[in-house]
Amino acid sequence: MKGEADRPGPDASAPSSDPKAPRTERGRRTRRALLDAAAAEFGERGFHDASISGITARAGVALGSFYTWFDSKEALFCALVGDMSEQVRAHVAPHVRSAPDGLAAERAGLASFLGFVRDHKEIYRIIDEAEFVDPASFRRHYAGTAERIAARLAAAAGRGETRPPADPAETEVQAWAIMGMNVFLGLRYGVWSEDADLDAVADAAADMLKRGLGPGES
Amino acid sequence: MKGEADRPGPDASAPSSDPKAPRTERGRRTRRALLDAAAAEFGERGFHDASISGITARAGVALGSFYTWFDSKEALFCALVGDMSEQVRAHVAPHVRSAPDGLAAERAGLASFLGFVRDHKEIYRIIDEAEFVDPASFRRHYAGTAERIAARLAAAAGRGETRPPADPAETEVQAWAIMGMNVFLGLRYGVWSEDADLDAVADAAADMLKRGLGPGES
Repeated sequence: MKGEADRPGPDASAPSSDPKAPRTERGRRTRRALLDAAAAEFGERGFHDASISGITARAGVALGSFYTWFDSKEALFCALVGDMSEQVRAHVAPHVRSAPDGLAAERAGLASFLGFVRDHKEIYRIIDEAEFVDPASFRRHYAGTAERIAARLAAAAGRGETRPPADPAETEVQAWAIMGMNVFLGLRYGVWSEDADLDAVADAAADMLKRGLGPGES
Repeated sequence: MKGEADRPGPDASAPSSDPKAPRTERGRRTRRALLDAAAAEFGERGFHDASISGITARAGVALGSFYTWFDSKEALFCALVGDMSEQVRAHVAPHVRSAPDGLAAERAGLASFLGFVRDHKEIYRIIDEAEFVDPASFRRHYAGTAERIAARLAAAAGRGETRPPADPAETEVQAWAIMGMNVFLGLRYGVWSEDADLDAVADAAADMLKRGLGPGES
């Protein structure tokens, strides 16, 4: 799964190059209902046990009209991974953008991501299952998330808000480390636990990210 | 996937409570050959497409004798997750133990984990697929890994080698953050890339963990 975001991404719920992209408001609503139903069905039953009829029933859409929107269960799953990736990005982006500096932005990104995860626990199963069902989407999600974090870190270092990296390659390592931190904190405190104080989790992680764990000068 | 370790764990390759545990050296070798073949088969084909006959053929073991050792494909997969979890732990533990202090131990844990991953790329697919095939093993792997990291951090803080946490719950957050960092650096630089300098990756992550990304006092 999972991550967060910054710059505007493509509208994954209606890629304009897709011949099946909806042209009317009603079509957009139907496609949206199918994606939401797919999130529930794939999240609950997993890809293999999920069925197109289960998804159309959840969406309140006639089985026959499924193929107006998607070619197959695989195509719907692939669209759903892009859609969830975009939903996380869009949820997190305004929090990141309104933060006063680079380190505050990473804290805001994590805090808003943890909140999103608690409301959308199925995102873990879906993005994690993409590793098997649709590896290209899985890779795109994580590579894209890490690139956005790295761009933020480089900008923050340029503004003197963070320690400049000794080597530009260090920024990529930091970005992947931060993404991994966020993903696992989301799993532990957003998915596995209902009652953890997400702000306290974000504070502890942000403090570690800012000061490190070293004893410091004294 | 994945992680690392410290204190002795159970020998996951031959749990003594298992009525099918081997009693002879020859039996141990056969069971080991089946687990190694299963790692290759599940890693390459995934759980659903993997077959018992494919595994016994890879292991050079007669199909009929498979059931001497495992009740089913599921039971073998479950044993394999425990076995891989234990292999990572055993590979990493001596590096962690011989480090001069707590922060050096985390760097050593990451560096030895990255090396293990590069030689055992299939571990990601297998532990990640456990989320779907065998959720209890998936959870046990990560919860156990995080507990070991948290115990190391608490000991290091007790020895004054790291900043003491403001609250004991902070140590758990730090442990999950470090585990996530290690898992995603392993994915990026151990699995996806053949030629990244793993020592440089471990250095960059260790530096971030020690000093943080803050600009510091100047």
